[in-house]
Amino acid sequence: MAATDAPTAGRESAIGTPTPRRDSEPKVRGTTKYAGDLPVPGLLHARLLLAHDAHALIKSIDTSAALELPGVVAVLTADDLPIVATGPGRPKRPLAREEIVYAGQPVAIAVAESEALAADAIELIDVELEPLEAVVDLEAAVRPGSPKARLHVAAEGEGSDIADAHAAVSAGGIDDEEELSENVLGTARIANGDVGAALAASEVVVRGRFHTPWAYQGYLEPQNATAWFDVDGELVVSTSTQGPFPTRAELMTLFGLPADRLKVRGAPLGGGFGGKMMIVEPLVVGAALVLRRPVRLMMTRSEDFAAANPAGAEILDLELGADRDGRLTGIRSRVLSDRGSTDDFGVESLVAMLSAGPYRWQAHELTGLGVATNRVTFGAYRAPAAPQAAFAVESLIDELAARLGIDPLELRLRNVAIPGDKAVSGQEFKVFGARECLERVGEHPLWARRGSLPDGEGIGVAIGWWPGGYEPAAAVCRLDSDGHLTIVTGAADMTGVETTFAAIAADAFGVSSDQVRVNYADTSSAPYAGMSGGSKITYTVGRAVELAALEAREQLLDVAADELEIAPEDLEIVDGAVQPVGVPAKAMSIAELASKVLTFGSPHRPVEGHGRVSLSPAPQCAAHLSHVRVDRDTGAVTVLGHVIAQDVGRALNPALVTGQMQGGVTQGLGWALLEELAYDEHGQPIAGSFVDYAMPTAGGVPWIDTEVVEVPAPDGPYGAKGVGEAPVVGVPGAVANAIAAATGVRSRRLPMTPERVWRALHENGNG
Amino acid sequence: MAATDAPTAGRESAIGTPTPRRDSEPKVRGTTKYAGDLPVPGLLHARLLLAHDAHALIKSIDTSAALELPGVVAVLTADDLPIVATGPGRPKRPLAREEIVYAGQPVAIAVAESEALAADAIELIDVELEPLEAVVDLEAAVRPGSPKARLHVAAEGEGSDIADAHAAVSAGGIDDEEELSENVLGTARIANGDVGAALAASEVVVRGRFHTPWAYQGYLEPQNATAWFDVDGELVVSTSTQGPFPTRAELMTLFGLPADRLKVRGAPLGGGFGGKMMIVEPLVVGAALVLRRPVRLMMTRSEDFAAANPAGAEILDLELGADRDGRLTGIRSRVLSDRGSTDDFGVESLVAMLSAGPYRWQAHELTGLGVATNRVTFGAYRAPAAPQAAFAVESLIDELAARLGIDPLELRLRNVAIPGDKAVSGQEFKVFGARECLERVGEHPLWARRGSLPDGEGIGVAIGWWPGGYEPAAAVCRLDSDGHLTIVTGAADMTGVETTFAAIAADAFGVSSDQVRVNYADTSSAPYAGMSGGSKITYTVGRAVELAALEAREQLLDVAADELEIAPEDLEIVDGAVQPVGVPAKAMSIAELASKVLTFGSPHRPVEGHGRVSLSPAPQCAAHLSHVRVDRDTGAVTVLGHVIAQDVGRALNPALVTGQMQGGVTQGLGWALLEELAYDEHGQPIAGSFVDYAMPTAGGVPWIDTEVVEVPAPDGPYGAKGVGEAPVVGVPGAVANAIAAATGVRSRRLPMTPERVWRALHENGNG
Repeated sequence: MAATDAPTAGRESAIGTPTPRRDSEPKVRGTTKYAGDLPVPGLLHARLLLAHDAHALIKSIDTSAALELPGVVAVLTADDLPIVATGPGRPKRPLAREEIVYAGQPVAIAVAESEALAADAIELIDVELEPLEAVVDLEAAVRPGSPKARLHVAAEGEGSDIADAHAAVSAGGIDDEEELSENVLGTARIANGDVGAALAASEVVVRGRFHTPWAYQGYLEPQNATAWFDVDGELVVSTSTQGPFPTRAELMTLFGLPADRLKVRGAPLGGGFGGKMMIVEPLVVGAALVLRRPVRLMMTRSEDFAAANPAGAEILDLELGADRDGRLTGIRSRVLSDRGSTDDFGVESLVAMLSAGPYRWQAHELTGLGVATNRVTFGAYRAPAAPQAAFAVESLIDELAARLGIDPLELRLRNVAIPGDKAVSGQEFKVFGARECLERVGEHPLWARRGSLPDGEGIGVAIGWWPGGYEPAAAVCRLDSDGHLTIVTGAADMTGVETTFAAIAADAFGVSSDQVRVNYADTSSAPYAGMSGGSKITYTVGRAVELAALEAREQLLDVAADELEIAPEDLEIVDGAVQPVGVPAKAMSIAELASKVLTFGSPHRPVEGHGRVSLSPAPQCAAHLSHVRVDRDTGAVTVLGHVIAQDVGRALNPALVTGQMQGGVTQGLGWALLEELAYDEHGQPIAGSFVDYAMPTAGGVPWIDTEVVEVPAPDGPYGAKGVGEAPVVGVPGAVANAIAAATGVRSRRLPMTPERVWRALHENGNG
Repeated sequence: MAATDAPTAGRESAIGTPTPRRDSEPKVRGTTKYAGDLPVPGLLHARLLLAHDAHALIKSIDTSAALELPGVVAVLTADDLPIVATGPGRPKRPLAREEIVYAGQPVAIAVAESEALAADAIELIDVELEPLEAVVDLEAAVRPGSPKARLHVAAEGEGSDIADAHAAVSAGGIDDEEELSENVLGTARIANGDVGAALAASEVVVRGRFHTPWAYQGYLEPQNATAWFDVDGELVVSTSTQGPFPTRAELMTLFGLPADRLKVRGAPLGGGFGGKMMIVEPLVVGAALVLRRPVRLMMTRSEDFAAANPAGAEILDLELGADRDGRLTGIRSRVLSDRGSTDDFGVESLVAMLSAGPYRWQAHELTGLGVATNRVTFGAYRAPAAPQAAFAVESLIDELAARLGIDPLELRLRNVAIPGDKAVSGQEFKVFGARECLERVGEHPLWARRGSLPDGEGIGVAIGWWPGGYEPAAAVCRLDSDGHLTIVTGAADMTGVETTFAAIAADAFGVSSDQVRVNYADTSSAPYAGMSGGSKITYTVGRAVELAALEAREQLLDVAADELEIAPEDLEIVDGAVQPVGVPAKAMSIAELASKVLTFGSPHRPVEGHGRVSLSPAPQCAAHLSHVRVDRDTGAVTVLGHVIAQDVGRALNPALVTGQMQGGVTQGLGWALLEELAYDEHGQPIAGSFVDYAMPTAGGVPWIDTEVVEVPAPDGPYGAKGVGEAPVVGVPGAVANAIAAATGVRSRRLPMTPERVWRALHENGNG
């Protein structure tokens, strides 16, 4: 079942064994040092002036009073930053120039000897504005004649790396004649077959409009970065980023710097979930380049709420049908994606594709529209656009099942994609465990209880999938002079990859995990690793680690073969030593061999394996059962239990995998019931702290039953797939279906707050 | 002729083209940042208490007064340092314990908020001593009954890595019955054949006793290192070291630290010449471990003179013969090597081997004795022990020639080793350009002038050789997102290797040098490179760079093959682009290809070549002509001109190679005429600054004519050999032979100062 059968003589394999994360204890103890903890000599501190208005022209910015404050080093505005790149994208305009396009937009950055001084300086900046009408109604914004969300700012952008970074899809534009306002920045249509005919020939057709909110990633560590010049004049950026290498590449382009004058140094992340990439780096790098002094910017929580890059709202219209045997026929969708002020994140093809769910359709016509509004920039958040899409399509699949009188799980089993099927994107599902996941939840005792629940309770089923990302990756596995292995990686330090890499290398090499260290190197010397996004680090970098360790193992056996004068194929690694197969008396410890390699006059070559990969994506999925109780008097929904069965390919470390599944479900419950980054009608954000923004907390999360399904990915390390994004996707749909099962009424707007559920129950409409 | 025929279409090869060193301009401008320039937050400064006596027992050390000084953080003595390793070697005893064995020995280290405060603290330390007799006469020290240079300190050590690091030799001990004192720490004898018989059958036998002094490496940057704890608790050592990896390995052993808790960060060296390795690191690391705070120790110049690790004095007795045809017969040598206080540098086999010169002998019996005295620790200095040996043997070869009436160059040509011969160590000279070097100086116009010189002038010839070191090495060649290559190396930043590595990678890959960057990475992420010693970095790491670049080139051609849909073997790299052979219209720039690799969703693997090598040593040599004028009234020797013909294998960068040749000759002239680290009869160092210690200066160095001889080394990059050490070796012998040619009188004591030459002339003895 494993992609590689590595020797494990005399040693329990590190693969498949639940192992605590190496970074857990320091995090729990509070001793982990994050990017913002790095001491830097002569550090200056920055604070941002954020716009109050959602839409306005900038007439003037007067920084003179701020600059008079002792201890204030500089107040910089857009024109001061030495950005040389042009075109769309927030990194190229980290400060507003001419026009403010959302409330919270950074307008100026004050740099001072202390954070408090910088904050004082911000108060003294005088900005003269000419207010403009704010575009905040997503549906109205697309209509011809809508006010423009931007007057001056370039409005068009191609699909960018950021969208690509999470899923590979491609689609054409819309070719019919719908008239759209200039606020529509991008369109995508994915179509095949005659949907009209397919729906007309259907036994049942259901349709619905679904609303999903802006949602905040909720990482505990706010966005922050620090930039300074190293002793040799090289610019160093220490940042809480999900991608040191992509950050370096973007900063190089942005400021016209060659690779050897800019080094990005990652740090342990205090959460990211897709949002930690190039929000603050352009500001600190720009300021450091101007001032030639070290600058740190640490967003406050309210700044992070107002000015980072949460998930955007969507309005999803779906119409789909099935024949009398419960075979899905056609699907038509039209998804409005609120891009806020984002002009370079072409997410339309992704929202269009995901709206079809992981099902076989006879015909489909899927449309995505990316719409500029006067809201914050849109960013990636754990499986971007997928929970929203699954909420819609899984709700309607459930309705189809009800109308057809087919068990909703059975209906999904009949239609869900299996290996060999093609997704609507045209990409083949080479391996895909959706059916196995559905079967697994179907076998769960909770599902058997659905007919015998008390009044007001219900169990919903849903499935969520994620196409999976891919990116070239490399890793080095080096034997150090003390006989331990060091994995050198350029990946970000998040989600426990260190623990997983160590296990992979240990198993591939044939030692125990505690013999393996992981070094997160900076971009100047690390092997390439892409952004930690798209659930691909374990899949791609992990595979590179495996290959590097296997190569290092061969190299060590060659050394031992010379020393022991025996052919390498007659050697084995047992208990930290190399020995002729079955002859422990002739064993040489790896430490002893290492000491014979890394020394003057050694005839051996250094033991340094180097793995390089480029893998095809391995789509992931998870099926869910959610068991809820709905209080008809208050509309309050209590999740009594939740089951997730996820295809993880191979659970390299079951403790981490189930942790990801539980975390994903928990965030999904936030989507379902709690979270909304609300704006008022003027585009003013209403939630600016965790007091205003409700997220799941430990006390409110039910027991989550995790069922690990293993349908191996042929390319992944030991068959593993990414596990980070899939578990969140199906949760809102499962909860919605549970609410419907409990009450007979459907909620079509996330989050399904008590008020909305109560209204749905009492207005008997589609809340 | 090159070991590798790399493609160079459309581009002048970077190999063989004189190119300025990349580090020259910042060094000339004074902007280079050395290890001591690194800003470290919260840095503490250390100063050393050095012993005044050359030999004494420590009765007590009272640090209380020093500790009362405000700003003094700690005063540490030997017992305070958390060293866990035992056995011989200065690193294990960086501070004197119980016994002081040389004047200048560090006894205590004071750590304070400033260097001045630390220096004040040193003055307040009260050390109570019981004086002992100092052993300073090298010859007397070996006699039975000599006072002991050490009473308490362990005195025996095996041959260590430090000796091995410069040349690979092995030899047995002395098996005859000579009675020796306990001060003789190590003995070596290399013998073959019946020397007595060979000498007895000789036509001519000559013999002589030669004295060579202690000599200081004379690097401009004093020894210094800084240690601190990184944000994650890892100990970082920033140091002016010739070997980051060996330093890490030694520090790990010394303090019992695992590889991932200790990172050594190299820095541009302000000279090293063999001396920069583990002199100050144990002190700063020990202090930092005790104090958990950053500590820097920067030796003053006088401390560096007194307490570092210069070359030791030698007394060489040689006897050798030739038959009437000028064929060398037998050689017998006995070399006393003054180890000073060094107990772990088993240099005896090296001094024994080198005393035979690069000649074929019918029989040899070569003896080396390593002798403890009450002097500073002995260290490596550019071709350790070789200039001294060549001074002796080349002087006597010249005498043989005179006695036989054979041209001295001709005598050497008849006897010098050629490929296929074996050195006295038993190692075969696989490739060796000594004959070619001699022929080249023989063809030089200066040699033709030797019969027609004015009175008081003379031209001497000599040859010097160096067996060459080897050590495993690795390097990475990475294609960055901007289309440039980065070489990642763990080598020290000295002798212009950056420029050479860039040229090698550029040529192997097929781009110009300015497309290649070199990153000196720290030990946590760098590929392995050994100490910069033994003239092997260009030879070994350079070869790894070449292999890495060739591999990266293949990887890039694979990428281009996919993109252009053409077989990789039909592609070429021209002008920074990959194109189908001869079809520039279809070229894709390397930058464009790079952008297609290092991005999300790319189907290509990262372009990262990784070269790993272990090479056999390639012996090096240089022949010299020195043209001097001797003033009979004063004994002053003026070098009027000097010719060096050196076998460099292949001159990768002729500008750097000839620079090494000129530098080596210059240091050789210092050995010949100027330099002596003198001690008085109580073991007190007399020279403590550049005022007292005469080194060659620009005004006093003659024009040096460099003749590059290229006898390719099959394993080296493009046939290159090491070039650093060979050029110094033959200089003192050539100058001595020139003085003899000018005056008929031989000086047998280095340096050949005016006083010594005058005495030799007027006493008509052997100076």
